[in-house]
Amino acid sequence: MSKEITSRQQDYSQWYNDLILKGGLADYSAVRGCMVIKPYGYALWENMRDQLDKMFKETGHQNAYFPLFIPKSFLSKEAAHVEGFAKECAVVTHYRLMNDPNGGGIVVDPDAKLEEELIVRPTSETIIWHTYKSWIQSYRDLPLLINQWANVVRWEMRTRLFLRTTEFLWQEGHTAHATSQEAIDETIQMLNIYAEFAEDWMAMPVIKGVKSINERFAGAEDTYCIEALMQDGKALQAGTSHFLGQNFAKAFDVKFSDKENKLDYVWATSWGVSTRLIGALVMAHSDDDGLVLPPKLAPVEVVIIPIYKGDEQKQMIDLKVKEFILQFKALGIRVKYDDNDNNRPGWKFAEYEMKGVPVRIAIGARDMEKNIVEVARRDTKEKTSVSMDGLADTIHILLNDIQQSIYDKAKNFREQNITNIDTWEDFEKQLDKGGFIAAHWDGTAETENKIKELTKATIRCIPLNNKLEDGKCILTGNPSRERVLFARAY
Amino acid sequence: MSKEITSRQQDYSQWYNDLILKGGLADYSAVRGCMVIKPYGYALWENMRDQLDKMFKETGHQNAYFPLFIPKSFLSKEAAHVEGFAKECAVVTHYRLMNDPNGGGIVVDPDAKLEEELIVRPTSETIIWHTYKSWIQSYRDLPLLINQWANVVRWEMRTRLFLRTTEFLWQEGHTAHATSQEAIDETIQMLNIYAEFAEDWMAMPVIKGVKSINERFAGAEDTYCIEALMQDGKALQAGTSHFLGQNFAKAFDVKFSDKENKLDYVWATSWGVSTRLIGALVMAHSDDDGLVLPPKLAPVEVVIIPIYKGDEQKQMIDLKVKEFILQFKALGIRVKYDDNDNNRPGWKFAEYEMKGVPVRIAIGARDMEKNIVEVARRDTKEKTSVSMDGLADTIHILLNDIQQSIYDKAKNFREQNITNIDTWEDFEKQLDKGGFIAAHWDGTAETENKIKELTKATIRCIPLNNKLEDGKCILTGNPSRERVLFARAY
Repeated sequence: MSKEITSRQQDYSQWYNDLILKGGLADYSAVRGCMVIKPYGYALWENMRDQLDKMFKETGHQNAYFPLFIPKSFLSKEAAHVEGFAKECAVVTHYRLMNDPNGGGIVVDPDAKLEEELIVRPTSETIIWHTYKSWIQSYRDLPLLINQWANVVRWEMRTRLFLRTTEFLWQEGHTAHATSQEAIDETIQMLNIYAEFAEDWMAMPVIKGVKSINERFAGAEDTYCIEALMQDGKALQAGTSHFLGQNFAKAFDVKFSDKENKLDYVWATSWGVSTRLIGALVMAHSDDDGLVLPPKLAPVEVVIIPIYKGDEQKQMIDLKVKEFILQFKALGIRVKYDDNDNNRPGWKFAEYEMKGVPVRIAIGARDMEKNIVEVARRDTKEKTSVSMDGLADTIHILLNDIQQSIYDKAKNFREQNITNIDTWEDFEKQLDKGGFIAAHWDGTAETENKIKELTKATIRCIPLNNKLEDGKCILTGNPSRERVLFARAY
Repeated sequence: MSKEITSRQQDYSQWYNDLILKGGLADYSAVRGCMVIKPYGYALWENMRDQLDKMFKETGHQNAYFPLFIPKSFLSKEAAHVEGFAKECAVVTHYRLMNDPNGGGIVVDPDAKLEEELIVRPTSETIIWHTYKSWIQSYRDLPLLINQWANVVRWEMRTRLFLRTTEFLWQEGHTAHATSQEAIDETIQMLNIYAEFAEDWMAMPVIKGVKSINERFAGAEDTYCIEALMQDGKALQAGTSHFLGQNFAKAFDVKFSDKENKLDYVWATSWGVSTRLIGALVMAHSDDDGLVLPPKLAPVEVVIIPIYKGDEQKQMIDLKVKEFILQFKALGIRVKYDDNDNNRPGWKFAEYEMKGVPVRIAIGARDMEKNIVEVARRDTKEKTSVSMDGLADTIHILLNDIQQSIYDKAKNFREQNITNIDTWEDFEKQLDKGGFIAAHWDGTAETENKIKELTKATIRCIPLNNKLEDGKCILTGNPSRERVLFARAY
């Protein structure tokens, strides 16, 4: 059935691309590095967005919208920030096209050159902190808890659908606080929300940690992250939450007067997740037959497929299915009845397997007589005959079970792929097997860079609540007080 | 209380800006012509978006996402289209910044010049129809009913918050059909959805009509629109739905094979509304004390303000309000309890009046004894004492009443401001009074242009189901078979 998908073993990268393209999630576009998110992929993103948005609002955040364009001079105001982003900026230099007077078709009008170039936002700290300057005067204006859903552009040299695209969709939270501690608490709170979302909704276990200096966000004092493990043993950074200190407040001169009327710079955080999460979701659970989606986020949780000969059978099945759909919807289950007669049942089975629909129900004329349906779960491929009585409740329980089950599977895989390593030789060997490596590191950027150069492995994070343990750096042998997590990563 | 707002009579434009800025809907930004949508304004947009999205999905449309950038050559493929948009395009020419070797700070890297310039989408027909070419082969792939929520950029010379900004948020539907009739039906269906949304949700009466050739969308065969009347007598185009014929299918060579295996070009529609609707909403209902928002879209429908001395009274009120909030939420009413003790009740009254919250409830200690609350409705300023028993139901009915009431008021105003005019002298006079003018026109673009030149009035639309009536063109005296609607417009 699923011959068209390259197997993971054969070519993991190709398998991933096959799933994205043939699963109907996204398509390549005519613009280098940009993708088209197809309806099925966008419905998945809507489910993710809506849940995250709910979690943000429950913790007091409000949405707002800031300009797509950033004046070039803004980007330069925070030194580390511009250093981090200058090399991947799409730059708007003109604002008009014209007919070429020499007959060369439509060309850029040289008279419509901007005095100052505009950058298509790669992230919005600078434009937002410029705005906050006029919004924040007193401690009464704080905290300011704002989130933005937006598109951003980073001119990447090597792109992959969802994982790394020139344009991507994301949310970026930007908060302002009166104290350092409050900003740190916010940073951790959002990290926890991301972890909760990844685990409870995406069924994807993550490790919470803090980045080494090398891997910090450009302009941050500290970058916290959630790191997930993909089936090929590579790590994937799934979300980041930054404590920005007073860096952007200083760059944009944002001060507030406290209760004692003393002026101080405002403390900041920013945090974001993006459509990259879809790539993570795909790689965490799917198999050689197609996507495997967690019920809580799947655009369609249950598909019902009729199997019949002739109109009379079809009508009987239709009537019954109508009842089921009402019952399913009453329980909040997203259900689709595919009675399109252009395609045969076998084709549909393969199609919904490819699309990762968690539960498939087939109803035939004989099943009707026996008062049963055939239920197939996507994750294990298990098929069972289930009574029509109380079907909605049965399916509801099954969906919860699938959600838990794919989480457990991913968690087991992750646990089996964290290895303590103590020598350089073992480190290099283990890296080729994949997974996270917990190893000692002497804490210097030089060593980290050297390890990256030698092996392409990076420090994914220093886990939160890490156990302290004396040891020696795997590369230099210098003393270390804790293990950090290395991996090759997306 | 509301001294800070310029009155409508004094300066209508300034009144509008005051409302947007002081009502907390939006702010100017550092980027020419771009605005910042503030949390209160964005919450309003979210309510509009969610309702529209629901209506789109109920009529079978799916969301997707296409690239922000359009290759310059794409824009040129449809002749009328490029003619319409070339003069207002933001153009990306480079993809990297660098440190100026001569010490001039951060500059555009001349080595990172794009081979082909990219246009920041002013609308997405071209990139979408390029994509549809690979999605559509057979009649089985049709209809394709896709919508996109996105930001777009049109380099406007004169901008106004919400009404005309360089960047704005919108939705753009792009559908593909097997027959001309089906595409026309879709065009009309979406026009009707826009009208229903404007009238039932925004409480803003609109006239449905078709544009004259001059006012057509660049690339359309027919442009349908909804036109609303603002309080200053100027018209505002609130939404458009275009029948594109086979123009874009031909430009991008999109053909399908029908049931008889015959190849034909695909038929298209596109339709959109934008954050401009917020400007329309503000101007349709608000008054000299601030915003007046329709309950169905207001971010906060009811605000409750406690009036108390000392903690004991406060605690009693708190307890009672907690009950009310539960009851309100059970009825789906968006309620806010403002017990912030930084501000006095009088300040809060003025603030929520400014923000257009439809209903204000004040509860004092004496009210508690009498089992009543004071209810003030924003639209009429009427205050009444209302029993605490069944308060949620009372308010629920009141909110419906307000929704209807502001619609009726706007409808009456509109009806009083449509005037039949038969001579050029009266036409010029009436234009200065404002409103729609129903007048005969000879049907030529020359006459339309001449009228615009002389008076700044344009043909807003030829109403659907227009009464046929023989007459003479107000400018040329040439024969005409129906009246069309003229107005000065935003």
